[in-house]
Amino acid sequence: MARRRRKRYHAPGTQPGTLAAHAEAGDTPVRVISCRYDAGRCEERTVSPSEVSSLSPPEGGVLWLDVCGLSDPSVVRAVGDRFRIHPLALEDVLNVPQRPKVEWYGDHLLVVLSEIRYPGLPEQVTFLLADRVVVSFRERPGDGFAPVRERLRQSKGRIRSEGADYLLYSLCDAVLDAFFPTLERLGDEVEEMEERVLVSPVPETFVAIRRLKRELQGVRRAVWPARDALNLLLVDEHSLIRPGTKVFFRDCYDHTIQLMDMVETFREMASGLVEEYMSAVSNRMNEIMKVLTVMATIFIPLTFIAGIYGMNFDTKASPYNMPELGWAYGYPALLLLLAAVAGGMVCYFRRKRWL
Amino acid sequence: MARRRRKRYHAPGTQPGTLAAHAEAGDTPVRVISCRYDAGRCEERTVSPSEVSSLSPPEGGVLWLDVCGLSDPSVVRAVGDRFRIHPLALEDVLNVPQRPKVEWYGDHLLVVLSEIRYPGLPEQVTFLLADRVVVSFRERPGDGFAPVRERLRQSKGRIRSEGADYLLYSLCDAVLDAFFPTLERLGDEVEEMEERVLVSPVPETFVAIRRLKRELQGVRRAVWPARDALNLLLVDEHSLIRPGTKVFFRDCYDHTIQLMDMVETFREMASGLVEEYMSAVSNRMNEIMKVLTVMATIFIPLTFIAGIYGMNFDTKASPYNMPELGWAYGYPALLLLLAAVAGGMVCYFRRKRWL
Amino acid sequence: MARRRRKRYHAPGTQPGTLAAHAEAGDTPVRVISCRYDAGRCEERTVSPSEVSSLSPPEGGVLWLDVCGLSDPSVVRAVGDRFRIHPLALEDVLNVPQRPKVEWYGDHLLVVLSEIRYPGLPEQVTFLLADRVVVSFRERPGDGFAPVRERLRQSKGRIRSEGADYLLYSLCDAVLDAFFPTLERLGDEVEEMEERVLVSPVPETFVAIRRLKRELQGVRRAVWPARDALNLLLVDEHSLIRPGTKVFFRDCYDHTIQLMDMVETFREMASGLVEEYMSAVSNRMNEIMKVLTVMATIFIPLTFIAGIYGMNFDTKASPYNMPELGWAYGYPALLLLLAAVAGGMVCYFRRKRWL
Amino acid sequence: MARRRRKRYHAPGTQPGTLAAHAEAGDTPVRVISCRYDAGRCEERTVSPSEVSSLSPPEGGVLWLDVCGLSDPSVVRAVGDRFRIHPLALEDVLNVPQRPKVEWYGDHLLVVLSEIRYPGLPEQVTFLLADRVVVSFRERPGDGFAPVRERLRQSKGRIRSEGADYLLYSLCDAVLDAFFPTLERLGDEVEEMEERVLVSPVPETFVAIRRLKRELQGVRRAVWPARDALNLLLVDEHSLIRPGTKVFFRDCYDHTIQLMDMVETFREMASGLVEEYMSAVSNRMNEIMKVLTVMATIFIPLTFIAGIYGMNFDTKASPYNMPELGWAYGYPALLLLLAAVAGGMVCYFRRKRWL
Amino acid sequence: MARRRRKRYHAPGTQPGTLAAHAEAGDTPVRVISCRYDAGRCEERTVSPSEVSSLSPPEGGVLWLDVCGLSDPSVVRAVGDRFRIHPLALEDVLNVPQRPKVEWYGDHLLVVLSEIRYPGLPEQVTFLLADRVVVSFRERPGDGFAPVRERLRQSKGRIRSEGADYLLYSLCDAVLDAFFPTLERLGDEVEEMEERVLVSPVPETFVAIRRLKRELQGVRRAVWPARDALNLLLVDEHSLIRPGTKVFFRDCYDHTIQLMDMVETFREMASGLVEEYMSAVSNRMNEIMKVLTVMATIFIPLTFIAGIYGMNFDTKASPYNMPELGWAYGYPALLLLLAAVAGGMVCYFRRKRWL
Repeated sequence: MARRRRKRYHAPGTQPGTLAAHAEAGDTPVRVISCRYDAGRCEERTVSPSEVSSLSPPEGGVLWLDVCGLSDPSVVRAVGDRFRIHPLALEDVLNVPQRPKVEWYGDHLLVVLSEIRYPGLPEQVTFLLADRVVVSFRERPGDGFAPVRERLRQSKGRIRSEGADYLLYSLCDAVLDAFFPTLERLGDEVEEMEERVLVSPVPETFVAIRRLKRELQGVRRAVWPARDALNLLLVDEHSLIRPGTKVFFRDCYDHTIQLMDMVETFREMASGLVEEYMSAVSNRMNEIMKVLTVMATIFIPLTFIAGIYGMNFDTKASPYNMPELGWAYGYPALLLLLAAVAGGMVCYFRRKRWL
Repeated sequence: MARRRRKRYHAPGTQPGTLAAHAEAGDTPVRVISCRYDAGRCEERTVSPSEVSSLSPPEGGVLWLDVCGLSDPSVVRAVGDRFRIHPLALEDVLNVPQRPKVEWYGDHLLVVLSEIRYPGLPEQVTFLLADRVVVSFRERPGDGFAPVRERLRQSKGRIRSEGADYLLYSLCDAVLDAFFPTLERLGDEVEEMEERVLVSPVPETFVAIRRLKRELQGVRRAVWPARDALNLLLVDEHSLIRPGTKVFFRDCYDHTIQLMDMVETFREMASGLVEEYMSAVSNRMNEIMKVLTVMATIFIPLTFIAGIYGMNFDTKASPYNMPELGWAYGYPALLLLLAAVAGGMVCYFRRKRWL
Repeated sequence: MARRRRKRYHAPGTQPGTLAAHAEAGDTPVRVISCRYDAGRCEERTVSPSEVSSLSPPEGGVLWLDVCGLSDPSVVRAVGDRFRIHPLALEDVLNVPQRPKVEWYGDHLLVVLSEIRYPGLPEQVTFLLADRVVVSFRERPGDGFAPVRERLRQSKGRIRSEGADYLLYSLCDAVLDAFFPTLERLGDEVEEMEERVLVSPVPETFVAIRRLKRELQGVRRAVWPARDALNLLLVDEHSLIRPGTKVFFRDCYDHTIQLMDMVETFREMASGLVEEYMSAVSNRMNEIMKVLTVMATIFIPLTFIAGIYGMNFDTKASPYNMPELGWAYGYPALLLLLAAVAGGMVCYFRRKRWL
Repeated sequence: MARRRRKRYHAPGTQPGTLAAHAEAGDTPVRVISCRYDAGRCEERTVSPSEVSSLSPPEGGVLWLDVCGLSDPSVVRAVGDRFRIHPLALEDVLNVPQRPKVEWYGDHLLVVLSEIRYPGLPEQVTFLLADRVVVSFRERPGDGFAPVRERLRQSKGRIRSEGADYLLYSLCDAVLDAFFPTLERLGDEVEEMEERVLVSPVPETFVAIRRLKRELQGVRRAVWPARDALNLLLVDEHSLIRPGTKVFFRDCYDHTIQLMDMVETFREMASGLVEEYMSAVSNRMNEIMKVLTVMATIFIPLTFIAGIYGMNFDTKASPYNMPELGWAYGYPALLLLLAAVAGGMVCYFRRKRWL
Repeated sequence: MARRRRKRYHAPGTQPGTLAAHAEAGDTPVRVISCRYDAGRCEERTVSPSEVSSLSPPEGGVLWLDVCGLSDPSVVRAVGDRFRIHPLALEDVLNVPQRPKVEWYGDHLLVVLSEIRYPGLPEQVTFLLADRVVVSFRERPGDGFAPVRERLRQSKGRIRSEGADYLLYSLCDAVLDAFFPTLERLGDEVEEMEERVLVSPVPETFVAIRRLKRELQGVRRAVWPARDALNLLLVDEHSLIRPGTKVFFRDCYDHTIQLMDMVETFREMASGLVEEYMSAVSNRMNEIMKVLTVMATIFIPLTFIAGIYGMNFDTKASPYNMPELGWAYGYPALLLLLAAVAGGMVCYFRRKRWL
């Protein structure tokens, strides 16, 4: 999260809907897992890109295609051709990172989310929902959907008996759930920083606070538009999402609100840390100035007095010329005078509470 | 409120609607009090978790189940089974702290509030409203609903003759009322701090202001979403809340607005305190600098002059070499000169209003 | 306005609609003035609390009950019983200060406003509007409504021929009009402070600015919700407020917008004053530092040179040991050197524009 | 614009609709110019206040009454009587300055704008639009409407063939157009200030920036509500403004948006100037401190060393007592030592980039 | 982008719809390229201004007029006459820069965008969409539309088979695409600045950050209203934009949101840079103060002690007068004392972590 991710964009003027692999997509081969299930069974297998065009959901059941890796645009094109996906939707799959969003294209739906899984890099996860079909795209191989797949295999809960919209919800939920441990870690760091800022208000601490703020900002940018997108999903009426499933999407939406709440709390705490750091720095400055002032103010008059009696006025030329130098107790008296001046100063500073 | 409360969340990918006890829920046994009442009578008794499944409201009357403690998820499950509560609603009961909210699930309603009762820890209070049934859940044993229970027993006011929605209102009102003493205390602390910041602008004061701000922020986070939730309750049309009861919920809503008003006022005052602290610190710095400058500026020229007459130029080598040293009144004249310079400086600082 | 007003609230869990006198209400007896008028006549008299239950508007005319003082809850209860006012509305009359608001209770209307009349303390003014009846409540005896009463007596303008809604408007208008002189005074103070901050940026000035900001904040808190409440009155359709009278309420609403405008302008000016104060303080610091730096930088090298020639190297031991001390023009030359160094420094500071 | 304009307000409790001349209105006589035109002709003449009551638009044409000066309320009253204007509308004409607004009064329309024409003082311009009649009021004599009058005389463009609504648009447009030169001038000043703040960050510059900000704030307060008012005009359906004319009012509205855009840009630049000023001041402080530190740090050790050799230990009492004083090359060696220390310090500061 | 662009405006009071060349428009001749195409063919040629009045779209096809340069208002007038464009729309073409906007004029549509192409100056691009006709205006000659023209020539994608609305989309898309490289560059600069601010927090860095912020502000001002305008296009129902093309405009809209996201991210980073700069400056100040304090505090007491033994008390007058001067080991003991004092100070500062 440290370095800014570069938004991928076509050269200005490129024809809309052009599909090309991301420069940073690497050349890890794309892995496609097909999962056909209904209430009774669940067939899961790895398919080759060329097989995509012949896949279809089982009768009365759901087809889930899980695509990991974006290095091969032909897979995306095959999916687009097979399920008649709008070219602009396909473009959004490849041109990562997109801002999280939900877009209706007549008979299919595009959902773009951003996943921040700790530890690891942020990643765009894109879903296409068509009639009884869900296609999910991840930027990199990963096991983020393993718990969902497990529930499908073991037919835990209602997941196999519900439709494609419920699967979409389960996958979105899995993406959003991954934010919580990340935020917990950031929260721990904020708390840790809270002690550090008081103990050692050094520039390194400030840099660390700034880094933390930037990470929180990154999470915020991932969650905030996801919230809006999910709200849109709740509000829009569309046959692809059944009313009964909306209750679950409302839960997702609720999670995004909770996530935003946590992010905002941590951000406020981090802003407070900056304030505290600044205050600690200025306290330090005050302390430094106090030491300087105390030392200088005590010794400057003393040095002056010593300087007086270092003058070479000719005591023999006149009895008015520094007769103190010839006194029997001149030196001890002077030492007492110096001690008295210093003591007076110390008292003055004590009263001012500078010592 | 000092330490951040950890949001409880399932491991990412857990099946939605999974019910499990909170890690921090402790093992205090759950206490369930059933209260069946109508205009004529009021039966109140402690029930065991196994009895929950056989409870029902009296004919024409209301059943109130008060559950204290979340250590035993089976109680929540029993309530859910008995009154056919949506699994997501039950999950929200257990996964504390939730953000305050109101959610409709067809024929029942979930109300989540956050209670900050002084002294004590913040606590989530959850209500389920179904047909003639109210179930309330608290995180810990406590007597927050004692006044409501008392009014039910003594049939004070209209509470026994109204329905379940009025009971829900009374309970929500009890939760919101608890904020007022907390806020009064915080207001007192803000005022106290206002004097302290002028008298002793030390880092400890700053830390105390920051703690106060954080507590106010905590109250804000509890009240702000409660306001929105109650507003939703007012706006939505639903048979569970009768129009006549809405007037009372409007009063609750009004209380949340007043609470927000108080919180915002105190927050502004606290922000003003930070500003005042910063200004006091910089005034202190100014004062320190002034003392240093005055002392240094007065004595530096004096020391220089004394230094001049401490030089060892050979007065015998030439009449131009420091003839002052041999003058009869050289020393007294010098002392006068020094006094004049110091006096001039003092006058200059007086005119600048630094002394 | 200096001290925070304590919101009065019942002990948590108190039954809604409980009427009790405010602890700060004092024991000044409550004064009730009844005013029954129609186009033809205007009967005005002081009534005792017990008479309230038998009062009614004249046929085709309007009854205005003006209640001054809240020390006796039985008056409020009598009004409530007589005109069938909702208990929550009565509670809002007594539990001062409420946030300004407008609330419909079926066939009657509650209007809560906050009056800040200069000089004097802020005060809640509550109106109840029912069919041909207006009841007004003030916290303390006062003559805020005297001009309205005078217009009723003398039948000035249309007030006697219009209905109860027009009377309500006239009373609201009287409350809002009182803000203008208060704001004028605050505006004058802001302008006065603007000169003071440049002339004497001392901590007292800062405290005065902060006090001013707090007073403005107080006015803001009184006007802002009044604006929203009046807007609600304009938008809601209700037979109690006739369309023709709405034009007048729109004028009231317009006044609140103008008041907010003034408050915001003054608040911005006050914030600018803080900025100016901070800048003045830091300029002062700069000036102090400059004086110190100039003095120290001029005299430190001079003192060093004088120190050199105060060393006791034995000029007889070697011709290389401080031969300057024996030169015929050694001392005058040194004085010239010192003058040259000092002059050079002064030139340097002149060029840097520090002198 | 430097001094705050005092809002004129009646004594609290004054009867609504009371018409009285503004205290600052002066006694310049009111000038009323009547202009009756249709596609074929344009009659223009100065009328006396008493003639107002007999004026009417030509058949199929438009009557424009241009009133300059508000010193004589009887003119406003005459206009009100002649065209049956609502008393509250007439009050708004006289009680300047009103906040810019648009208000419908059944069959007539009130438009209040604020004109800031450079050079000159801000001025309220009020329009009343009734059936085939436009009445415009200015606070002071002025030629702001001269170009419109000229276009009427010469029948330039469509102005004579369009109705009263188009005339109202032309007059509003003339008022808004006057803002552009004012804003250009303010923009020039902001740019000029941008150079000044770098060259001479003195308190005077800060005061000038603050003044600029306040002027921009003044323009903002005039334009912002005008924008809202014009938007209201576009949205409301009313027979007085024909749909074809709305396109032109949309252009006016667009101008207010552009004005706001300019104001906001300049305000942001001005805020940046404050930031820059603060940074320049603190840089200056840094520079001052650096000079002080460098001078003090170089000379303090040197002075100390010179002080050592100014001590009077008795070299004859013991060979350990300051034998350096008697060395043949003692003095030159010391000078070398001093030079070395000074050189080392300078190197240190060079490396720290303080020199 | 460095200098503020001057908004062109007519002299106040100018008749609306007046067409005049911009003062800064220069006298580069206007180049008009006509492009008539349908699915089967594409005729492209440069036309003279006088030919404009005879141009028309091919049957069933689209006419695209590309006007580069605004120095000749007669071209704009000719276009207006030929396609019956509203005078206010034509005025907006010439009075650059307008704020980006979309305006419906009955049967035609005006789209104003701002193009910021790197490197180069910002430029207004205006589109007029009428039935089967698109007219585009640029301020200066340029090849921004070359890729679109190329796609038309080679009939790439669907561009030739779609209507004028799709062409408008393609052109808008080309304008918006040009922002991405500009923003990338600004993002790179922000990142570069992030290192610079830590390494050399000099005023030049601050000026560079400020310049960067202003450039980002410029992009923001171009994109923000474009977003609103495109949203308006999506929401409004109009036969000129077919529903199928709206999906593409939604993509444009999405791009503006992504652009805003990038701008806001960079702006936040830039604001963080200011904070970091300020913190770095104050750290520097702290360091300077520390060096001064350490040096002064170590040497001031030493100098004082040396001053003591430089006094000229007459050791012969009394055995109490500075007997140390005559001790055999007086000088070495003194040197040890000085070393001890200095060492103690160093220890003290070590413990304070100032060294």
